[in-house]
Amino acid sequence: MKITCDRQQLLDAVLNVQRAVSSKSSIPALQGILLKAKQNSIYLCGYDAEMLGMTTEIEASVLQTGTVVLSAKLFGDIIRRLPDERVHLETDDKNMTTIQSGQSNFSIVGIPAEEYPELPKISGERGIQIPNSVLKDMIHQTIFAVAESDAKPIHTGTLFEIGDGKIRLVSVDGYRLALREERVNSEENGLSFVVPGKALQEVSKLLPENDENCAIQVGSRHILFTVGSYTVIARLLEGEFLDYRSAIPQNSSSTVTIKTSDFIDSVERVSLLITDRLKSPIRCIFEEDTIRLSSYTPIGRASDQFPAKLEGNSVEMGFNNHYLLDALRNAEGDQVKVELNGPLSPMKVLPMEGNSFLFLVLPVRLKSEDAG
Amino acid sequence: MKITCDRQQLLDAVLNVQRAVSSKSSIPALQGILLKAKQNSIYLCGYDAEMLGMTTEIEASVLQTGTVVLSAKLFGDIIRRLPDERVHLETDDKNMTTIQSGQSNFSIVGIPAEEYPELPKISGERGIQIPNSVLKDMIHQTIFAVAESDAKPIHTGTLFEIGDGKIRLVSVDGYRLALREERVNSEENGLSFVVPGKALQEVSKLLPENDENCAIQVGSRHILFTVGSYTVIARLLEGEFLDYRSAIPQNSSSTVTIKTSDFIDSVERVSLLITDRLKSPIRCIFEEDTIRLSSYTPIGRASDQFPAKLEGNSVEMGFNNHYLLDALRNAEGDQVKVELNGPLSPMKVLPMEGNSFLFLVLPVRLKSEDAG
Repeated sequence: MKITCDRQQLLDAVLNVQRAVSSKSSIPALQGILLKAKQNSIYLCGYDAEMLGMTTEIEASVLQTGTVVLSAKLFGDIIRRLPDERVHLETDDKNMTTIQSGQSNFSIVGIPAEEYPELPKISGERGIQIPNSVLKDMIHQTIFAVAESDAKPIHTGTLFEIGDGKIRLVSVDGYRLALREERVNSEENGLSFVVPGKALQEVSKLLPENDENCAIQVGSRHILFTVGSYTVIARLLEGEFLDYRSAIPQNSSSTVTIKTSDFIDSVERVSLLITDRLKSPIRCIFEEDTIRLSSYTPIGRASDQFPAKLEGNSVEMGFNNHYLLDALRNAEGDQVKVELNGPLSPMKVLPMEGNSFLFLVLPVRLKSEDAG
Repeated sequence: MKITCDRQQLLDAVLNVQRAVSSKSSIPALQGILLKAKQNSIYLCGYDAEMLGMTTEIEASVLQTGTVVLSAKLFGDIIRRLPDERVHLETDDKNMTTIQSGQSNFSIVGIPAEEYPELPKISGERGIQIPNSVLKDMIHQTIFAVAESDAKPIHTGTLFEIGDGKIRLVSVDGYRLALREERVNSEENGLSFVVPGKALQEVSKLLPENDENCAIQVGSRHILFTVGSYTVIARLLEGEFLDYRSAIPQNSSSTVTIKTSDFIDSVERVSLLITDRLKSPIRCIFEEDTIRLSSYTPIGRASDQFPAKLEGNSVEMGFNNHYLLDALRNAEGDQVKVELNGPLSPMKVLPMEGNSFLFLVLPVRLKSEDAG
């Protein structure tokens, strides 16, 4: 392999592809990036041999084709520091790789490409196209509710449902639910699959804020996202996802219109006495024109209130402060509509108009000592 | 205690004084800030009961004088989040403290002031005044060479020498030395003491970039810095500081004029192959119009070069990359003068003009396998 390419283009490619590389693998090849010099380009690939792979291709003058695997971290660090705009790469038959730019010369030990695992192939394709910025928003507004624990592996991913000209993303973790819906230009119907949260996080980082399309191809076991010159391949999660429709309350006895930032500030304040060691729910009292919040732990008590407009019944209920904050911080718009159905039914957070998102937060049963 | 004060003023005071509070102490009072409501002000004090204390005073409307100790972290977090510009503080006879601002109310458990240790008193005072920005620079340019290990406790501090109208700061850690000198308007002579690095770091953060004076009072066992409305008291270190004058080479066989950023970039590049696990010196070859650097570890080799002007003998020598970088990054000016006296004598880094600073970096003996 013997090539010359642009330093910045190579750096961008390495920094992105690097994110699919497993930093903890004990297999040296899996800590590396696979480079393939083709006719007029270099192909780069990072893969954790398990869940996530990322590839891209950049322009290059190729004097000699070939392949090598280089330590992702070291290679990235070197490219970042090179002094010149052009980079020359050359690999000998022992995989020793020379990186040269300006007056700087590096020789680093490479790994034969034969030791690198093959990316899975997508089979039985179906798929859709969706604007980059729309998908980015949808991922952002649902990923916070993905389960962190492996107790139910299927819930460490986000459910995609495509049909009737709509795409819907749903995450649940047993304590809250986030749902996001958009219209989409597609003939697909009844297509549903679960994508690992980690993979969506990486896709989201690649997605630019523009109206160009991201292509999604779904196979029987894998999914492939194509974003510009990048592809991300991920293993789909298997198992039975929560029947989320039945988890969403159909009725409400109270509707509250709230300035989102007021609610966030107030929850943040009464959370100051709550720590990992000193847990306590936040007591929320929803009244006609005021919401009152309080908390109580062995180090003290806190209370706060802010104006709001309630229609329906007053209600007093408890929440986990983190789940409340996540839902409010991910709600779009200055104001949100909160629907309640008594102290033991989940809180629904909705946009003022339409149904582009729906967040559920399960209540926490209050004991009498949890302040008042 | 019953007072009202400005939220921002209180917050600034708490955030600064907090830095002297020991976060790890098992004694609750030492994790706290002492508050004293006086006639028209509140006095705040943080003290680790060992090495460092910090006090300040801010304006307040005091309805009732009194004292209390409040958890530094919790108190700071609460003040930061309060909604209004004014804060009301009230402590009852059980030290329960109410913090109120706008619609927010906190009651937190306080600690009686009797459990708080007393700050040491300065005895046998001598001292000087020095402009804030000058002292800030001097600390910044010497603190990097303070020893981190406790092997020689005296070297975890910086030596101050005051006399003949000059103030000189010197730090050493066995591998390098940093010396910084300025003229000062003082009659003091033969005054010398060693201030802990940690205390100087905190003083430096308090020092604004202006020409007002910082007052330094030196007692037999402690030193007191007065910066605006703040005082910092620190225990002086005891022991015999290195005879640094004899450590500085008097002669040089080579003088090199170097663009500082060229040297830094080049050292950073050849350092990329060096890790905590894969140690290696950097080989520097100083030649008539070029400096060549290289390194060699089991993962590969790196070489780099940049133009420079050498007068005297060519020389080839090894350095620890971190020590070289620290000296270069703390040198003032686009260019530095480097003086060498053969491969086994320390490198001197000096300003192009004058002698405001002098950094020494000890060489590392090169083995033949350390690249070439």
